[in-house]
Amino acid sequence: MRAVFVMIKCDLGKAYEVAEQAVETVPEVSEVHSTSGQYDLLAKFYLDDETDIGRFVTERVQTLPGVADTFTLITFNAFTRDSSPAGTRLA
Amino acid sequence: MRAVFVMIKCDLGKAYEVAEQAVETVPEVSEVHSTSGQYDLLAKFYLDDETDIGRFVTERVQTLPGVADTFTLITFNAFTRDSSPAGTRLA
Amino acid sequence: MRAVFVMIKCDLGKAYEVAEQAVETVPEVSEVHSTSGQYDLLAKFYLDDETDIGRFVTERVQTLPGVADTFTLITFNAFTRDSSPAGTRLA
Amino acid sequence: MRAVFVMIKCDLGKAYEVAEQAVETVPEVSEVHSTSGQYDLLAKFYLDDETDIGRFVTERVQTLPGVADTFTLITFNAFTRDSSPAGTRLA
Amino acid sequence: MRAVFVMIKCDLGKAYEVAEQAVETVPEVSEVHSTSGQYDLLAKFYLDDETDIGRFVTERVQTLPGVADTFTLITFNAFTRDSSPAGTRLA
Amino acid sequence: MRAVFVMIKCDLGKAYEVAEQAVETVPEVSEVHSTSGQYDLLAKFYLDDETDIGRFVTERVQTLPGVADTFTLITFNAFTRDSSPAGTRLA
Amino acid sequence: MRAVFVMIKCDLGKAYEVAEQAVETVPEVSEVHSTSGQYDLLAKFYLDDETDIGRFVTERVQTLPGVADTFTLITFNAFTRDSSPAGTRLA
Amino acid sequence: MRAVFVMIKCDLGKAYEVAEQAVETVPEVSEVHSTSGQYDLLAKFYLDDETDIGRFVTERVQTLPGVADTFTLITFNAFTRDSSPAGTRLA
Repeated sequence: MRAVFVMIKCDLGKAYEVAEQAVETVPEVSEVHSTSGQYDLLAKFYLDDETDIGRFVTERVQTLPGVADTFTLITFNAFTRDSSPAGTRLA
Repeated sequence: MRAVFVMIKCDLGKAYEVAEQAVETVPEVSEVHSTSGQYDLLAKFYLDDETDIGRFVTERVQTLPGVADTFTLITFNAFTRDSSPAGTRLA
Repeated sequence: MRAVFVMIKCDLGKAYEVAEQAVETVPEVSEVHSTSGQYDLLAKFYLDDETDIGRFVTERVQTLPGVADTFTLITFNAFTRDSSPAGTRLA
Repeated sequence: MRAVFVMIKCDLGKAYEVAEQAVETVPEVSEVHSTSGQYDLLAKFYLDDETDIGRFVTERVQTLPGVADTFTLITFNAFTRDSSPAGTRLA
Repeated sequence: MRAVFVMIKCDLGKAYEVAEQAVETVPEVSEVHSTSGQYDLLAKFYLDDETDIGRFVTERVQTLPGVADTFTLITFNAFTRDSSPAGTRLA
Repeated sequence: MRAVFVMIKCDLGKAYEVAEQAVETVPEVSEVHSTSGQYDLLAKFYLDDETDIGRFVTERVQTLPGVADTFTLITFNAFTRDSSPAGTRLA
Repeated sequence: MRAVFVMIKCDLGKAYEVAEQAVETVPEVSEVHSTSGQYDLLAKFYLDDETDIGRFVTERVQTLPGVADTFTLITFNAFTRDSSPAGTRLA
Repeated sequence: MRAVFVMIKCDLGKAYEVAEQAVETVPEVSEVHSTSGQYDLLAKFYLDDETDIGRFVTERVQTLPGVADTFTLITFNAFTRDSSPAGTRLA
């Protein structure tokens, strides 16, 4: 599994509805935060190594009602306190 | 508790050392990822509501050996599948 | 109280109307400036420590008629000539 | 008088020292905030209409010990609750 | 007189029409270039020192048909080969 | 011939259709990639030295159905393993 | 194989030396261009699907003499005229 | 001849010296302005169509004492009031 972060700008006034909807309807969602800065939300997804990330963002995230723009941040390796780094394979 | 994300640019060639060190020496770290884009790392911290986030980033993150630049992203509210949104208080 | 800056891009030609409206209708506004750069306006708000800033920006600022985009800048600590730094609590 | 905002990135770990120093030594400072995002500080200055802003930022702000980078945001007009907009002349 | 540069993003496919129109209809235009990068055009205007630049950009540039977004760059001082620097007063 | 890269943001959910269409209908296309970051696609074109690149991007790329925004990156010189650098003239 | 683009800012005046060196010493390089914009060079690499891209950029690209900063752009899928899209597997 | 704009960030406190020096020592300079925003200076150069712009910026601009960073903006076509657009060939 690979963690992918997507920063999401929403239609004006719709960020909290988009966040709730993403959590309810996209099973790959791990967490969503409303944030400071240029984007309204930061969402974290866990995707299979075989998933085409571009297609996932384009067809599964950008098509959520109220999404206006996205910025995709790919992770290569996860470092956590209780585990030695072992690539992005977390499962 | 409030989740804060810090994107970190490291001295050239040092990103993986910084990631390992952050995980080992900063107790507030929740996770660190190496990432695509302008920054080398994305780190997530959980801070007390009373913590001065600017001081934390300036004095505890920017002073890690090998850190060259930081971008701080504040979260206001966390949405997760199994919980109703309840502000950033996660504890 | 916490100072929050929001940079605002407006519908084309509407920046001055938005500025006047924000000042008249949003009690948390402290000041609004028209500015150089990517955004048309820089607005400063004072919010209670308990206010969910994301929800305030989404539901109170982005919904002003003529607002097209926002960028939120959180302050952690205020430094002024006649006072020792004391967190963002100004009241 | 014209309000000018300067976003300041500081040498690693030095942001709070720079903020205190700016407030103490630059009479044109109105307020300084530590902030989220790409820069560490947001400072507001009031300058005479005759002041060459580029020279002020270059020779008076960038030369403060601990300053690493600046971004200058010019204001054209100030809108406040208790006054009709009247250009940037506030005095 | 003060030189002001405005980077302009146009409605898709309309950049050359906007450029020609700006040159024909805005007397303050000095030159317009189509450019690489995020914006389609870079336009240079000469404005009186008394002109409210924010209002000029909002009401005279953003309202040109086909303009979609603007970024305003203020100049403080002009340096040219055959003249000693003397502020932005060129006339 | 000169290589020009154009980063393309597409209408929500349409990136893969735009990519396929660009490849099929624009003869100057060399390759198109879906990418991480702010834009959905990175396209590489080879243009004659006489081509007005601004006009090409404005009238031939921005007018493809589903394109929402573009960022143009000009190349000056190409370096490849099996050839000495020789300007952008590759043909 | 997966195409990865890295935009490279070089030590002042060193971009062409870095480009030549990258082509000569990094076997994964496919092509390098000097470019307009914020970065000096755009380099394209082909990496095995198993390669940790973050480690490659950190330890193999950032350590080239004369490199000052990097921005990594991941590709998910390649579209070319004479082939149906088939993920980033090009070999 | 082709107009090329280069935005220049200077060593702290050195912007006005760099501007004067560029005007005196680089014959291709047309004008230099100190500016608001992320960069200190905006310089305009006129280059022959045969000039490798990347090499010019790297070897002639970045090597001026006091220059810290550059951003290159290429122009494709110039529009002026008293002339029909005719590509960037101005001579």
